[in-house]
Amino acid sequence: MLSVRDIARRVASGAISAQAALADSERRIDERDGDLRAFAARPESLKVGEGPLAGIAVGVKDIIDTADLPTGMGAAIYDGNQPRADAPIVMALKAAGATVAGKTQTTAFAFLDPAPTRNPHDPSASPGGSSAGSAAAVAASLIPLAIGTQTGGSVIRPAAYCGVAAIKPSYGLLPTVGVKPFSWSLDTLGLMAASADDLGFALAVLTGRPDLDAPETTLDGLRLGLCRQEFIDRPEPACEGALQRIADFARKGGATVLDIATPAELAETFHAHGPLQNWEATQALAWEYANHREDLPPKLRAYLDEARATTPGEYDVARGTARRGRHAAERWFGEVDLVLTYAAPGEAPETRASTGDSKFNRLWTLLGTPCLTVPLMRGPRGLPVSFQLVGRFGDDARVIAVARALERLILMPA
Amino acid sequence: MLSVRDIARRVASGAISAQAALADSERRIDERDGDLRAFAARPESLKVGEGPLAGIAVGVKDIIDTADLPTGMGAAIYDGNQPRADAPIVMALKAAGATVAGKTQTTAFAFLDPAPTRNPHDPSASPGGSSAGSAAAVAASLIPLAIGTQTGGSVIRPAAYCGVAAIKPSYGLLPTVGVKPFSWSLDTLGLMAASADDLGFALAVLTGRPDLDAPETTLDGLRLGLCRQEFIDRPEPACEGALQRIADFARKGGATVLDIATPAELAETFHAHGPLQNWEATQALAWEYANHREDLPPKLRAYLDEARATTPGEYDVARGTARRGRHAAERWFGEVDLVLTYAAPGEAPETRASTGDSKFNRLWTLLGTPCLTVPLMRGPRGLPVSFQLVGRFGDDARVIAVARALERLILMPA
Repeated sequence: MLSVRDIARRVASGAISAQAALADSERRIDERDGDLRAFAARPESLKVGEGPLAGIAVGVKDIIDTADLPTGMGAAIYDGNQPRADAPIVMALKAAGATVAGKTQTTAFAFLDPAPTRNPHDPSASPGGSSAGSAAAVAASLIPLAIGTQTGGSVIRPAAYCGVAAIKPSYGLLPTVGVKPFSWSLDTLGLMAASADDLGFALAVLTGRPDLDAPETTLDGLRLGLCRQEFIDRPEPACEGALQRIADFARKGGATVLDIATPAELAETFHAHGPLQNWEATQALAWEYANHREDLPPKLRAYLDEARATTPGEYDVARGTARRGRHAAERWFGEVDLVLTYAAPGEAPETRASTGDSKFNRLWTLLGTPCLTVPLMRGPRGLPVSFQLVGRFGDDARVIAVARALERLILMPA
Repeated sequence: MLSVRDIARRVASGAISAQAALADSERRIDERDGDLRAFAARPESLKVGEGPLAGIAVGVKDIIDTADLPTGMGAAIYDGNQPRADAPIVMALKAAGATVAGKTQTTAFAFLDPAPTRNPHDPSASPGGSSAGSAAAVAASLIPLAIGTQTGGSVIRPAAYCGVAAIKPSYGLLPTVGVKPFSWSLDTLGLMAASADDLGFALAVLTGRPDLDAPETTLDGLRLGLCRQEFIDRPEPACEGALQRIADFARKGGATVLDIATPAELAETFHAHGPLQNWEATQALAWEYANHREDLPPKLRAYLDEARATTPGEYDVARGTARRGRHAAERWFGEVDLVLTYAAPGEAPETRASTGDSKFNRLWTLLGTPCLTVPLMRGPRGLPVSFQLVGRFGDDARVIAVARALERLILMPA
C-alpha cells in the first residue's frame, strides 16, 4: 500500500514532486478502478496543493459535500447533486495541501445496500460497507489516504475486510458538517490508510493537533483489556485467533493483557444503538422516505419502514442509556488503559450481496470512543482478519501511539 | 397576533377552511411585507395540507433547507441555492399539515450583520437577529407560526424585541439536520408564535410528544429562582422592571420566588461560549471564508478573521467547561424548579445597524436548557420588554406549562 508519511517525506525532501505523486495515484486509478469500482466521481485533473499533505491523493466518501464534484450519496435520487460548499473535512484536506482524487463509492446513504465496489483481495467477496470505496481504494494501493464515516461500523469493518488501517476518532473530533446525516448522535468521520503511523500523521495535520502524531510509545506497564463483547454472538474462530495473536504481541512488547468482562451497563448500552439510530434516521431521511420511498434500495427501505415505529419515548430512553453508558465507559477505562476487541465478526462475506455486520463496532460508535484497526493476518479464506483497539473518549493520541507500537511488533521478522 | 391553536380549532370544526386560513396569511403578507421585509422567498401558491396544523402558514428561517424554495442563508454567495431535500423540521411541518408560507429573512449565516427586516413596532428600530424575519412576521400578524434558530440568542432575543412568544427547546429536541451550521454544539431550532399556549400546541405536534402540550399548571408551591446573570453588565432598567413584574405575577399565582445567585461554575461556563463558537464557526464556514471572504458581510468577516486564532486546545478546554457547566446546571435545578431571567439587555436597539446583544441568552444556549419568552410589557421607548423562563434540560413540558400559567396572569384584567 502507499504510505502517506512516506510520500509526504519524499515530496518534502524533493525526492519526488507532488505532481508526480498525484500522477502516480491517477495512473493507478485509471488502470485498476474499472474493475475495482472504488470511485463514484473523479475530477478532470488533480491540482497540486501546498502543505504537509502536498502530493497526497485522497478519496472522499460520496456522502461528503464537495463544491467541485457531485455528491451522489450512493443513491439514484441524488444523481447530479452538486453541493455549493466543501465540507469542513474537505477544506481541512485542501488546507493541508492534499488533493481530492475523487469521491469514493458508498452504500446508499451509508446504510446496508451494497456499493458496486469489489474487495481487492477477492472480487467475489464484499469490501464491507458503508465506506466501501474508501477502504478498497487504499487496500488496492490506488491512493494513500481516504475519508469514511461510521454510524455502526462503517469505517472499521470495511477496513478490516479490505486489510487496511483505519481510525474512527472520538466523536466530534472531525466535524461532520457537510456530511449527509444518518444518525447525528452516532455519525463519525474516520480515516483509512496503510498504517497507524500514517493515520497519526494525517489526523494530526487535519485537526491541527500535533499530539495525535505522538511517537510510538512503549507497551511496558500498559494494561490492555481483552474484551470479547460477550453480549453478542461469537465471531468466526479466525477473529478469536486474531485477538489471541495481538494479545501475544502486546505481552511480548511488555504490556499486561487481562481478560475483562464487559460491564453490564455497556451491554445495555449496546442495545440502545438500535432505537437511537432508528429515530434519528427516520428524521434525517424524512424527505427521501416521504418523496422517494420506491426509489430507495430494498434494505434501506425495509429498515425505514420498521424504524418509524420507534417512538420519541423509546428514543429518550435510549439517549439516557447512552449517556449512562458513556459514564460507565469512563469508569471502565480507569481499570484498563485500552481495550482490545474484534474488529468484525469474520473475514469479508463471500458474497457481495452483504456488507457484513457491524455488531462488534456499534457499542464503541455509540460511546464515542476512539477505535483503530491495523492489518494483522489472513483467515482461512485468505482474506484479512484483524482486531480493534479502543481507547477512552478523547484519548486518540494514546490509541494511535499504542497501535504504532503494535504494528511494529506485527511487522517485525519473527 | 394570529393564534395557531385558534386557527387549528376553527379549521378542525369547519368554521373556516384551511384554504381560507392560508389565503388570509397570504393576503396579509402581500399587503405588509413590502415594508416589513420579513420574507426572503415565497412559493407561488400555498398548498393545503392535512393534519392538526392544516391551515397554519409557517415562516421558515432562510438557513433551513427547503426542496421547493431556494435557501439563501441571508448571503449573496448563496443566491439561488436550491437544496435537494427539505430539512426534517420542514418535513415535520408538512407531515402535520402546515404550509410553508415562505423563507424568512435571516442575518447572513445567522450572525450579526442585520437582515433587511423591520421591527413591526418601529420601522427604524431593530427586529433583533438572527431570526429577524421569523419574529417580525409573527409580530406583525402575517403568520401564526415561524421557525428560527439560536446559537447565541437568535430566537429569544428577536422574539423579545418584536413582542412575540418563543421557545428555544432543549438542545437536540428538534433535529438540526438540513440547517446551515454555525456552531454545531450550540445551534438549536426554535418556534415563534403569539403565546406559550400556541408554542406548546405546535411543539407537541411537531415532535410527536403530546406531553409538551400539557395543560396549564398551577404555580402553587413552585420554586422560581430570579437570576440576574450578575457576571454580565446590567440590562436597561426596563428589563429589571420586567423581571420584577413577572416575579409579582408568579407570587400572586402562588409560586415562591427566590433571588438566587448564579453558581460560579455557570459564570465560568458563560465564558466558554466564545471559544466554542469561534472554533466551530471557523470549521463550519471554512469553505465560505476561504473562497468568498471578500463577499462576506463586515461583521461576520471580522469575526471569522479573529475566531481563527482560537486553537484546538482552547476549544477542548471550552468543551470541558461546557460539560461541567451542564452538570452544575443539573444540580442547580435541584434547588429551584425554574429560573426567571432577562430575555434581552433592553428594548430593541434604536438603529437597524445592530441586532442587539445575546449576552443574556448565551449561557442557556450553551447549557442546552429550554428557554421561553412571552410578551409582557412595553419599555420607555414604547417597544416590547419581556423576561425569559429557563428550565432544566429536558424539562420543556414544565417550562411550557408554567409559561402558560404566567401568560394567563399577565393577560388577566387587573
